Amino acid sequence: MAGICNTDLEITKGYMGFKGVLGHEFVGLVEKINGPDQHLVGQRVVGEINCYCGTCDYCLKEMKTHCPNRFTLGIMNKDGAFAEYLTLPVSNLWPVPPQLPDEVAVFVEPLAAAFEILAQIHLSPTGRVLVLGDGKLGLLCAFVLDLAGLDVTVSGNHAEKLLLASEQGLITIHRPDLKPAKNYDVVIEATGSAAGVETAVQCLRPRGIIVLKSTMAAGKKMNLTPLVIDEITLLGSRCGPFGPALRTMAKGSLPLRRMITGIYRPEQCKEAFVKAGERGTLKILFDFR
Amino acid sequence: MAGICNTDLEITKGYMGFKGVLGHEFVGLVEKINGPDQHLVGQRVVGEINCYCGTCDYCLKEMKTHCPNRFTLGIMNKDGAFAEYLTLPVSNLWPVPPQLPDEVAVFVEPLAAAFEILAQIHLSPTGRVLVLGDGKLGLLCAFVLDLAGLDVTVSGNHAEKLLLASEQGLITIHRPDLKPAKNYDVVIEATGSAAGVETAVQCLRPRGIIVLKSTMAAGKKMNLTPLVIDEITLLGSRCGPFGPALRTMAKGSLPLRRMITGIYRPEQCKEAFVKAGERGTLKILFDFR
Repeated sequence: MAGICNTDLEITKGYMGFKGVLGHEFVGLVEKINGPDQHLVGQRVVGEINCYCGTCDYCLKEMKTHCPNRFTLGIMNKDGAFAEYLTLPVSNLWPVPPQLPDEVAVFVEPLAAAFEILAQIHLSPTGRVLVLGDGKLGLLCAFVLDLAGLDVTVSGNHAEKLLLASEQGLITIHRPDLKPAKNYDVVIEATGSAAGVETAVQCLRPRGIIVLKSTMAAGKKMNLTPLVIDEITLLGSRCGPFGPALRTMAKGSLPLRRMITGIYRPEQCKEAFVKAGERGTLKILFDFR
Repeated sequence: MAGICNTDLEITKGYMGFKGVLGHEFVGLVEKINGPDQHLVGQRVVGEINCYCGTCDYCLKEMKTHCPNRFTLGIMNKDGAFAEYLTLPVSNLWPVPPQLPDEVAVFVEPLAAAFEILAQIHLSPTGRVLVLGDGKLGLLCAFVLDLAGLDVTVSGNHAEKLLLASEQGLITIHRPDLKPAKNYDVVIEATGSAAGVETAVQCLRPRGIIVLKSTMAAGKKMNLTPLVIDEITLLGSRCGPFGPALRTMAKGSLPLRRMITGIYRPEQCKEAFVKAGERGTLKILFDFR
């Protein structure tokens, strides 16, 4: 199975200038191994999407996702997962625990991206966090930070998406009711809009942290002077670690299945992409089984 | 004596919407004290520019420069130092060591702003730093980071300003010769231009830090997507601690006197501001003595 990410939608609008097979969220079976590790054949796996050289400064410093020689599955110089077969180095693969169904395991890549926030910076569990955006990535970030003990509020436009957050015990605010008051320690920008960043600045306390989680074809523009006056930290955040994501999914406490809006056959590709781009849609999956 | 800061020039263009007496860099004599501390009368002092309430959450958490009730000398709700007399709370004052001449002591406020970088984040002395901009604040930031052991390069347009840096042992690059190669761990943006931020992104390694040191009347605009892809940290930085600035000035190793382009009488105010705004000018001082 494979999932459609907002990045896929952005690529169809020109982001990264990528031409090729899309798709970087998947779960699959190992069909063939070139080299040793033949025991992996037949194993159900998920895979990290950045293929690195292993010899540059970034690889040697455990910053492989920033390897300047990297290929990225379905995003840069490498065909992706919306296909019957794909290739990845063995070192990118993670076996999937048997109890995880395919339609849950396929969430590992975006859930890892949410964990990237905790990998990048120390966030005290006493902190107040505002997640701007109730889309797929916004909800996953909110769930991860909530599990880490933080006081999490999600703001978005969609009642049914916010319901998923409030049922997890998170505070939710319908976007028009959000009153910026510079009172959050951390704001996660997951709306993918320029307005989102401006709102983040207005909601953040002085010396707070804004985490940028969205990439998009059209750049965001913003006035940077408020960052200086309030000494704000703006932190870009991308791909994350699969280990914590798999461990968390295995516990079964996140409502990942309920984040699936629809499952399509590969032949329904166009229909699936149209649905993925509609307001109110959460995760769209392809089923190749 | 009092110094003209770029912020003063920006205020004359509309920044902060301030109407009143400008000036926030000064050294002076205490003429009168209301309350105890009468021993300070006659003492030569410099003064921190943010007057805080002392009772809000920010003040109680030692973040007084972000007190929401603050007045800021010559910038916000409080007349400044381009005058024969000014007032400040006693708690804002720092006695000036006798060996520091007035024309050096007057640099304490911008030098403290340079130290703010080290107060905000841990920078390893093994780091490679690029300072974009050879103006007053750029040079002071470069000097401070050099003293902290970092490998500092200054890029700017003015040969005579870069000479001050190279004579301190820093690497200098004439701006047109700067080849962005994503190879600096930290970039200090002190040009005050939108182009400066774009250049910073191109010179910074993935997961590096950009420190924004300039405030301006017209906001900077930039595309934020590269921040996400390279997981860059953008950090706004403003007023800093006077203690380390005074200790460093007392050592006499910084070429602060050579950063003075001209000293004017208060009656020459207009002339002084014109000179301060000219390309190639470093510090302009007023002499009220």
